[in-house]
Amino acid sequence: MANIELNILGCGSALPTTRHLPSSQVLNVREKLFMIDCGEGAQLQFRRQKLKFSRLQHLFISHLHGDHCFGLPGLISTLALLGYTGELVIHVHSEAEKPFRAMLDYFCRDLPFSLRFNPIVPGENIYEDRSLIVRTLPLKHRIPTCGFLFEEKQKARHLLGDMVRFYNIPVKLLADIKMGADYVTPDGRVILNERLTRPADRSIRYAYCSDTAYTEKLLPYIEGVDLLYHESTFAEDNVLRAKETFHSTAKQAATMALKAHVGQLLLGHYSARYLNDSIFLDEARTVFPNTILANEGLVVPIDGK
Amino acid sequence: MANIELNILGCGSALPTTRHLPSSQVLNVREKLFMIDCGEGAQLQFRRQKLKFSRLQHLFISHLHGDHCFGLPGLISTLALLGYTGELVIHVHSEAEKPFRAMLDYFCRDLPFSLRFNPIVPGENIYEDRSLIVRTLPLKHRIPTCGFLFEEKQKARHLLGDMVRFYNIPVKLLADIKMGADYVTPDGRVILNERLTRPADRSIRYAYCSDTAYTEKLLPYIEGVDLLYHESTFAEDNVLRAKETFHSTAKQAATMALKAHVGQLLLGHYSARYLNDSIFLDEARTVFPNTILANEGLVVPIDGK
Repeated sequence: MANIELNILGCGSALPTTRHLPSSQVLNVREKLFMIDCGEGAQLQFRRQKLKFSRLQHLFISHLHGDHCFGLPGLISTLALLGYTGELVIHVHSEAEKPFRAMLDYFCRDLPFSLRFNPIVPGENIYEDRSLIVRTLPLKHRIPTCGFLFEEKQKARHLLGDMVRFYNIPVKLLADIKMGADYVTPDGRVILNERLTRPADRSIRYAYCSDTAYTEKLLPYIEGVDLLYHESTFAEDNVLRAKETFHSTAKQAATMALKAHVGQLLLGHYSARYLNDSIFLDEARTVFPNTILANEGLVVPIDGK
Repeated sequence: MANIELNILGCGSALPTTRHLPSSQVLNVREKLFMIDCGEGAQLQFRRQKLKFSRLQHLFISHLHGDHCFGLPGLISTLALLGYTGELVIHVHSEAEKPFRAMLDYFCRDLPFSLRFNPIVPGENIYEDRSLIVRTLPLKHRIPTCGFLFEEKQKARHLLGDMVRFYNIPVKLLADIKMGADYVTPDGRVILNERLTRPADRSIRYAYCSDTAYTEKLLPYIEGVDLLYHESTFAEDNVLRAKETFHSTAKQAATMALKAHVGQLLLGHYSARYLNDSIFLDEARTVFPNTILANEGLVVPIDGK
């Protein structure tokens, strides 16, 4: 498997259909799982896709429409039943805590783990660990809505073993050299880093943009990402309805992908009115050929190649 | 189809599995739909089974464990999106209203229909229409829990056309005669009802009993019902765990069916620990042969034959 994989748990929109579950995804970064949105049924699909609840610690909720968060009480109950420990963090608009706490205080008293709501603010870094940063993206919807950019930190350069031995570089200096430092020999000569290392592997970037109207303000934030998930609630036959409801068409999603020079485009959040999703793919590919359709169970490797 | 059909939307227990959804059923009484429990995913399965949201007006929630009611916010949102009108009544423990209102007040402002929580009290009739009565059943669980008895009212007897013509009975008297009245001729003779009618069709009775420990106190309430849904969370290998958690084994469910002289037993609420449900069926049938297993999508006709 790739180091980073995106698992699609649900890619329908607000009205339930027999074909799609509401929005939910799990980004698997070397077995650390990050859930993005949590529509009804997310925990069921999570298990169906054989993901491990114990690997999940951070949830990111884009906005407070039910089809993006009604799966939270069930997921949290299940974590409690399974004896989940530690801290679960839900990164979400500040207004979420009140209604969800009312449910959880009643239904999930005495949680065996700590549950923290982290109020998200557009434009800020909301999560950071040794290798990953998550930032919010400013989307344009009927209510405050954030996309999420998952960005690997700059990786270590690869040491050239022969050169390290040739210069007899002390081990304690190697960490700095991997991060780009030059080496100064005991007699004061500077050996440039480029002579001692070869470039690091690429850092992966994944952008999640749902729900949103077409907005070019987003472009600088998602420029060059390896994978862009962009909602395509409608096809071109409903371009006016897309505008009215602050959603996008498949073609608009593809235009964003083109203008932002992304590696691959992943479509989702399909309106229930379309009985066949291929219309989204066909329309998007006229603008941006490297487009694929989200579907429940799909796993998309993100390797930046 | 039979006049009354039971649709199984979910028959798992609290932990999600890939095989079962949490508890939910829909009793279809001549196209009036009554939902019993509403676990996460109930609205998705409702649509999958091609039931009509517009026919649903009453929901009955047995108890306030999440696997029996976490589907409510999603269902209510969907009804709002579909332009449902009229009144939706949720018959449920009085404590439900506060946490659910907190969710609904935030996520479902401006519902286009009226939503009423009807606090249920064990032992009372909670619903009645022209042809049906619903009563609560006292179950024995860790928190206050009600089963539900759906009981058709006594039906009209069938008029014997020849006799009606022979006695030249006025039309205005026929309704009473169908309900069992004798006929008094103009010259004062009493014609017994049995001469004028043949017996009414049987009135159907369906009992829903989940979640509950084995309790013989229930027997008088469910005596002779046509169909009994009784939880069987465990098999005999976990009879002690069943007792501790106030659940039942399949064999205990079958013993209830036998002692209550029911027509048919339907098992459900299977613990996630069993990978194959046939153990429940095998164990129950040693006690009560006319047993079947609930499964998502199953439709059980209840015709009292």
